[in-house]
Amino acid sequence: MKKLINDPQDAMRESLAGFGEAHSDILKVNFDPVYVVRADAPVAGKVGIISGGGSGHEPMHGGFVGQGMLDAACPGQVFTSPSPDQMEAATAAVNGGAGVLHIVKNYTGDVMNFEMAAELCQAGGIQVEAVVINDDVAVKDSLYTAGRRGVGTTVLAEKICGAAAARGYDLGRVAALGRKVNDNGRSMGMALTSCTVPAAGKPTFELGEGEIEMGIGIHGEPGRQRMPLMPAKDLAAHMTDAIVADLPFRAGDRVIAMVSGMGGTPPLELYLMYRELELILRARQIAIQRRLVGNYITSLDMAGCAITLLRADDELLSLWDDPVRTPALRWGV
Amino acid sequence: MKKLINDPQDAMRESLAGFGEAHSDILKVNFDPVYVVRADAPVAGKVGIISGGGSGHEPMHGGFVGQGMLDAACPGQVFTSPSPDQMEAATAAVNGGAGVLHIVKNYTGDVMNFEMAAELCQAGGIQVEAVVINDDVAVKDSLYTAGRRGVGTTVLAEKICGAAAARGYDLGRVAALGRKVNDNGRSMGMALTSCTVPAAGKPTFELGEGEIEMGIGIHGEPGRQRMPLMPAKDLAAHMTDAIVADLPFRAGDRVIAMVSGMGGTPPLELYLMYRELELILRARQIAIQRRLVGNYITSLDMAGCAITLLRADDELLSLWDDPVRTPALRWGV
Repeated sequence: MKKLINDPQDAMRESLAGFGEAHSDILKVNFDPVYVVRADAPVAGKVGIISGGGSGHEPMHGGFVGQGMLDAACPGQVFTSPSPDQMEAATAAVNGGAGVLHIVKNYTGDVMNFEMAAELCQAGGIQVEAVVINDDVAVKDSLYTAGRRGVGTTVLAEKICGAAAARGYDLGRVAALGRKVNDNGRSMGMALTSCTVPAAGKPTFELGEGEIEMGIGIHGEPGRQRMPLMPAKDLAAHMTDAIVADLPFRAGDRVIAMVSGMGGTPPLELYLMYRELELILRARQIAIQRRLVGNYITSLDMAGCAITLLRADDELLSLWDDPVRTPALRWGV
Repeated sequence: MKKLINDPQDAMRESLAGFGEAHSDILKVNFDPVYVVRADAPVAGKVGIISGGGSGHEPMHGGFVGQGMLDAACPGQVFTSPSPDQMEAATAAVNGGAGVLHIVKNYTGDVMNFEMAAELCQAGGIQVEAVVINDDVAVKDSLYTAGRRGVGTTVLAEKICGAAAARGYDLGRVAALGRKVNDNGRSMGMALTSCTVPAAGKPTFELGEGEIEMGIGIHGEPGRQRMPLMPAKDLAAHMTDAIVADLPFRAGDRVIAMVSGMGGTPPLELYLMYRELELILRARQIAIQRRLVGNYITSLDMAGCAITLLRADDELLSLWDDPVRTPALRWGV
């Protein structure tokens, strides 16, 4: 294993410490329990938005904390759910009196712990709603998951719900928007290589030199199938066809698209994949209205990428365009 | 070789096409000859700023084209200098009547071709100045270079000169600022793995499982030495000591710091390295005033990172904070 770390056990906390130092104008990192929170939290009268999940997927979620997006994020150890006490503390820290929305990726541990935290918070008098994201079309009932896994649509839901909360929407309306995003968002990923979990010290799975894993999970969970390595245009077609058929997306649809690197894939390749996606969707008369291309949900050092499409109406596009000021997503401010 | 590409010969152009599609609100890509240019170029009365170099280092330089930074960028094939005709066309495209600054990394081909382009432009009546960046403390007279290589300080020079041009500084003053940035900026990088050039199809060099290359060049050129893999804190100390001793940076200095990934290293590790840098500089009473942590100058899929420090006075910090709107660097707008 070759990584820029010290003791593997300390990697998550040391990285978070650096992250907190680097972005102290936007957020602060609390260490006991661990959560990342907007520097100006709680914002009085605004619905708070929090998310969380295992580390190793940066910038998700800490990199999306800031004005116009998340109020707090709860990072677990690498690929490990955060605990209810983290979520409870973060919820309390961002409650400005208008309630708090939990945006939860559909992994068994995350869902269970967020539910427990929500009960504790509600018992303490904080209004809490949850939106569970389960957008991965690759497989059903995967390792760590009952039902579909939550992946890229989470980022889009965080942006859009964050914008709605900043506009002053109430908790019910923000939660409904989150569900609307989940209902209209679909994702699928693929891996050229495995990732290596620091504490494990060796690749999570083996892939031959001529093989890829189509439908990979963000923790290296098995996807749909092993396939031979093929040109980018065929990889993009495979993913896009599965995504489009699932919703289904139709001619005339407008979408927000994301091509996210898995951590070990450089920008040159991600933009090349974005071009293939553009060409495929154009042929299907599906119009990309907004897009993100870069590392948004990573899987440690895995090489590969994932595509997310969100069918977007005027409301979602307008919320997307609202100002955002976070370490990983910033415009208009 | 496992990459998200089609024919290796087409990778640069196909990626650029995707990049142009993704960021059409900010820039456009011209294909014959190849350059990336601000959508609203030329800006009348403003000094134009252009840069360029081989592809494979994205987001440098195309990702820095936009308001408050570069007016154009000339990408060559992967790790190959762009040609004088690209530079000449880009210079003409961004000349708003106040002249054009060429920001050139110190590689033999880049310097020669930018000089040739400058002569052609001057013969055509465009005022041109050049700033050559040679900030890499690792080695002198490396492969492709007479003298020191130009690396991370290039990004900081592009931001600061871009801001100065946007403020309306004249060509001589913008060029002088570029030289001031180069004089006060120092960098060094290290690799955990080699990169693989698409057209070559195999790693540029070999590194054993327990080895790193300290002082690596951004094309995989040899650095100072092969060293055993060591903890992040020791890697950071090795790079930072070399950088600090070179200028030298002194107690009381204020700096802009950049920790740039080489392309295959994920955010978790980069922020961990940033923390080590912070701790080392704090002990030396050198104060990081601003920072970038992420992929800014990559070397295809190489794993590793580079540190850049720029000694910054009030003038440089103020220009740094000015609004910028590019694909890779954006704030205040």
